[in-house]
Amino acid sequence: METIVNFLRLTAEEREAFQAAAPGQEQLFRPVDTQNKSAETASPQELERATVIIGCVSPKALAGCPRLKWLQTWSAGVDPYLAPGVLPQGCMLTSAVGGYGPAVSEHMLATALAVMKGLPILRDNQRAHRREKIGQVKSFLGATVLLLGVGDIGSHFAQKAKALGAYTIGLSRRPERIIPGVDELHPFDQLDQWLPQADLVAMSLPETPETVGLMDRRRLGLMGEGAILINAGRGSAVDGLALAEALRAGRLWGAALDVTKPEPLPEEHPLWDCPNLLLTPHTAGGDRMEVTRRRIAAIALENLGRYLAGEELRNRMR
Amino acid sequence: METIVNFLRLTAEEREAFQAAAPGQEQLFRPVDTQNKSAETASPQELERATVIIGCVSPKALAGCPRLKWLQTWSAGVDPYLAPGVLPQGCMLTSAVGGYGPAVSEHMLATALAVMKGLPILRDNQRAHRREKIGQVKSFLGATVLLLGVGDIGSHFAQKAKALGAYTIGLSRRPERIIPGVDELHPFDQLDQWLPQADLVAMSLPETPETVGLMDRRRLGLMGEGAILINAGRGSAVDGLALAEALRAGRLWGAALDVTKPEPLPEEHPLWDCPNLLLTPHTAGGDRMEVTRRRIAAIALENLGRYLAGEELRNRMR
Repeated sequence: METIVNFLRLTAEEREAFQAAAPGQEQLFRPVDTQNKSAETASPQELERATVIIGCVSPKALAGCPRLKWLQTWSAGVDPYLAPGVLPQGCMLTSAVGGYGPAVSEHMLATALAVMKGLPILRDNQRAHRREKIGQVKSFLGATVLLLGVGDIGSHFAQKAKALGAYTIGLSRRPERIIPGVDELHPFDQLDQWLPQADLVAMSLPETPETVGLMDRRRLGLMGEGAILINAGRGSAVDGLALAEALRAGRLWGAALDVTKPEPLPEEHPLWDCPNLLLTPHTAGGDRMEVTRRRIAAIALENLGRYLAGEELRNRMR
Repeated sequence: METIVNFLRLTAEEREAFQAAAPGQEQLFRPVDTQNKSAETASPQELERATVIIGCVSPKALAGCPRLKWLQTWSAGVDPYLAPGVLPQGCMLTSAVGGYGPAVSEHMLATALAVMKGLPILRDNQRAHRREKIGQVKSFLGATVLLLGVGDIGSHFAQKAKALGAYTIGLSRRPERIIPGVDELHPFDQLDQWLPQADLVAMSLPETPETVGLMDRRRLGLMGEGAILINAGRGSAVDGLALAEALRAGRLWGAALDVTKPEPLPEEHPLWDCPNLLLTPHTAGGDRMEVTRRRIAAIALENLGRYLAGEELRNRMR
């Protein structure tokens, strides 16, 4: 018999659906109130018994889960669970990729528009009770948006950008695909030739050996004068010090970072006080929107059915 | 012979088009660098001779234009020119309504999204080098947007809101019309019954006797808990003190005002420091986007042709 420990916040209907999906199995619902990496709502005995965990328990808590055969995270990124020894041998790992597209892309849109319209500067003026007009602003209308990351999040963002009048170019290791919202898809290794043509570079990449340090000083220098960079993927993909320099030199129009490296930034980091740079504290994702919570529950529910039927799991990461 | 004084910033092609539209007439191009209400680029003699002015000269300068037969503004609102005695008797007045839809609606979208995602608060935290997560955020996805003002600007905003997943309800004195982007159009006098149902109230109304004081304390009180108000029309339509109270009491989620009454706000006005209220200094419009400049030139050019052919002018306000 399986012991399924489910840490998701669920509606009554969703809980019934999970129960119906696993008849005859032990299924423990231990909802975690806010999105955190803790398993405190389950007892050590329950964790020890668990064969399936749905939710982001800490790598530390996983040490107390010797029977675990499958971990379904509520996060899109799973890097903490890929380190050797974190999961028991043979344990499967699936992510919640696909759950975050609507929410994260809307956050990206909000911060991109804020930077285009100079809202960080206008907000600072407001706090100083100062009324100062600004000159020209940027727009999605007629802009070229370069998407680094064309997964669920990148595709959702591309669709929004297109709806506002932008032309969208995506880069991918599999450029033969059709991605909703992406006008042109090119091989990722053409990055250097597309960067100068973008008015907005929109990043939603996972952390992999290829993405660490991707937007380094040289590539930031390839971006056009007055272009904008936004990053809602992983902080390691952007050289924060080089970005701060480009912004302070007025070479770029602005930037919005939901993620940084290191995260959090040290108190004295130059990014904090860059002109027209908006920092948000890794809050694009999370379950701050009901649609995200619902989509994650649906992904987990489908995978539970597949698991019990012995079928291939979706979003398999290991 | 006509003397046409044209204060618009024009491309070489646009200037040629204006010249071709008025053969044999005196046409003086006196472009004003940034959008202001001054006629300093034309001499008093030129203004005295002018029969047509294209641009927003000050009411004071108009006192020196006794031969004026037609004023085409570059603004959407024309209230300063409607006061008795500002224009010579019989002088026609046309506005640039239709020029601002793309730009103002994008600014409205930027500020609405900023408030939904709590960006004013996150920006303040950033300036304090403070990293503080926020809880739930708002979204256009599934939201009900109530449009007060369904002209060029309101319609463009409605289309953007719909593209992001909102349901749009417009109010109009002529509810039998079809407005692009508006899902339902109802009579304006039903305002009180629609206000409680809106997640976002989006205002883009001109200043008229009916709109002054429209969103007073009572109507702000009809808005739902956690709803958002944005105003890019005229400041007189919203009671700023009552709005500040509703925001400080936490009854509303937030607000974004591009216009206020009075404007500018006095130094000690409570709106400056309201939580999750974004103030922008009447910069939604203007010609901060190239598309706006182009659209205004096109409106003026079409009207110049109509004027010289003796046809009915578009956007006739007087």
